[in-house]
Amino acid sequence: MHIPAYDEMLEAHERIKPHIRRTPVRESDYINELTGAKLYFKCENFQEPGAFKVRGATNAVFGLDEKRSEKGVATHSSGNHASCLSYAAMKRGIPCHVVMPSTAPQAKKDTVRRYGGIITECEPSTSSREATFKKVQAATGGDFVHPYNDPRVIAGQGTCSRELVEQTDGLDIVVAPIGGGGMVSGTCLTLSTLAPETKVIAAEPEQADDAFRSFKAGRIIADDAPKTIADGLLVPLKELTWHFVSSHVSEIYTASEREIVDAMKLTWKHLRIVMEPSSAVPLAIVLKHPEVFKGKRAGIIITGGNVDLDRLPWLSQA
Amino acid sequence: MHIPAYDEMLEAHERIKPHIRRTPVRESDYINELTGAKLYFKCENFQEPGAFKVRGATNAVFGLDEKRSEKGVATHSSGNHASCLSYAAMKRGIPCHVVMPSTAPQAKKDTVRRYGGIITECEPSTSSREATFKKVQAATGGDFVHPYNDPRVIAGQGTCSRELVEQTDGLDIVVAPIGGGGMVSGTCLTLSTLAPETKVIAAEPEQADDAFRSFKAGRIIADDAPKTIADGLLVPLKELTWHFVSSHVSEIYTASEREIVDAMKLTWKHLRIVMEPSSAVPLAIVLKHPEVFKGKRAGIIITGGNVDLDRLPWLSQA
Repeated sequence: MHIPAYDEMLEAHERIKPHIRRTPVRESDYINELTGAKLYFKCENFQEPGAFKVRGATNAVFGLDEKRSEKGVATHSSGNHASCLSYAAMKRGIPCHVVMPSTAPQAKKDTVRRYGGIITECEPSTSSREATFKKVQAATGGDFVHPYNDPRVIAGQGTCSRELVEQTDGLDIVVAPIGGGGMVSGTCLTLSTLAPETKVIAAEPEQADDAFRSFKAGRIIADDAPKTIADGLLVPLKELTWHFVSSHVSEIYTASEREIVDAMKLTWKHLRIVMEPSSAVPLAIVLKHPEVFKGKRAGIIITGGNVDLDRLPWLSQA
Repeated sequence: MHIPAYDEMLEAHERIKPHIRRTPVRESDYINELTGAKLYFKCENFQEPGAFKVRGATNAVFGLDEKRSEKGVATHSSGNHASCLSYAAMKRGIPCHVVMPSTAPQAKKDTVRRYGGIITECEPSTSSREATFKKVQAATGGDFVHPYNDPRVIAGQGTCSRELVEQTDGLDIVVAPIGGGGMVSGTCLTLSTLAPETKVIAAEPEQADDAFRSFKAGRIIADDAPKTIADGLLVPLKELTWHFVSSHVSEIYTASEREIVDAMKLTWKHLRIVMEPSSAVPLAIVLKHPEVFKGKRAGIIITGGNVDLDRLPWLSQA
């Protein structure tokens, strides 16, 4: 297991800068008054493919040497990693093979294809996904880029906090949502060197709280099939992300489905940005634990903005 | 009639800078490919009260001398001007009196009150509004700040294009929505001196096309009660805005309700920003007239982001 180092994050940043956006940081006086904190929202939903995952994906794709790049990259994902890896591969002009469950939403498949990704469908089960992926990789020789358990990916995600630190003037806390732990690990990687006084707090849905329980138990606990509206946060920690989470995260807090939806709507209304439910979990826990955040300067990572505009959760919850 | 000059825009900018946001400019590779143009979206929806109107309102409020400021400001508006003027007055700590129709949405009244605005309700007719406003002004002595037919307001709105020019690298065209013409007039004021080679194009709903017909006829035509989803664009031109529109606007194009809603949804999906229907009219006309914009660098002013998240137009149109 190779643990990525701070220098690898710096190299990643130089590598990906020409291909990604330096996303803006937004503030809302209204939300600051409401929480008693000073919150800085880092808008990764403004990346062209709509998610921070373009950072890690671009680092992996552009880090391949010429020879390895010829066979392209491969992954399994039904979410933002699939479209972001396809996007990065398109930018470099190499093939990207994606294994997706046949049940994935048509819109997600369309996005992957729009970026030139080649989809192989599998059954919606872990065994079918693994078997299908093995076949695809054997046939294509594509370099496997895991959605988060990959040092290149974690180093790439770490570039987000580096920008956030540059764009603000010292932070007490950074809060990021946690699923597999890629963004949280990158945040730990960067801040433990660049701003060791800044705490990293992870935010997780109550209904997919495996990272919270792992953190308390001191070992990885993986759930079978958690269900939450925050569909970017369903996957479990793996050894690499567990390393960062267990060694550098200060606390993990959880939020209910209703709290997530309320925080999502509040952000849309007052920051006027479109973001997905997963990105609302950090604000939900800030609102839930005012004692932790009051008077503090906290960075909030808005991880993505790919949401079905025809099915907004506050409209279907009535 | 005092026509504001370029220097007044410069003074306005210095005056309002501490109180407003220098809003970011967003781009979308997807929308650029779709239109064949290079589009720069100036996000005035990211102003704290959610609309460009905070610029003109702040200029008027902070431009009052001490003595005049004591009695505060007054206006009639049921839209963004009411909340932006209240916001600016709150920042300066002076009273703001607003005459609003009793039928105005509760959310709009709540916003004005949140910013300390004092509401007097009238019947939803022009005669009642004028009579009520006259009474309020006589009783309070507040300085009347018209939503757009006021040189201080136009000079304030002009600061937006100044930032847009600084944030981009030369533009062929700037497109702004047109209602009363405050933003379009400010844009003309600024660009006619700062970037005279840049064309100003106005975008209007077909169902409230009085500016379009005025432009063709060479005189102000005011409609009685136009109806469009772009509810920020219902009001007619007045003499000051007519001056700028008739002398410096290159063209006015119109868009149907369906085209406006489609452009709105496209922007939410690909720029991932929350904006109101009025702000979608410029992109709607870019999509409708590709021959005008193809290969061009065009600034698009996203005028506001105050929208009822429980009633999105693409959901009620089905």
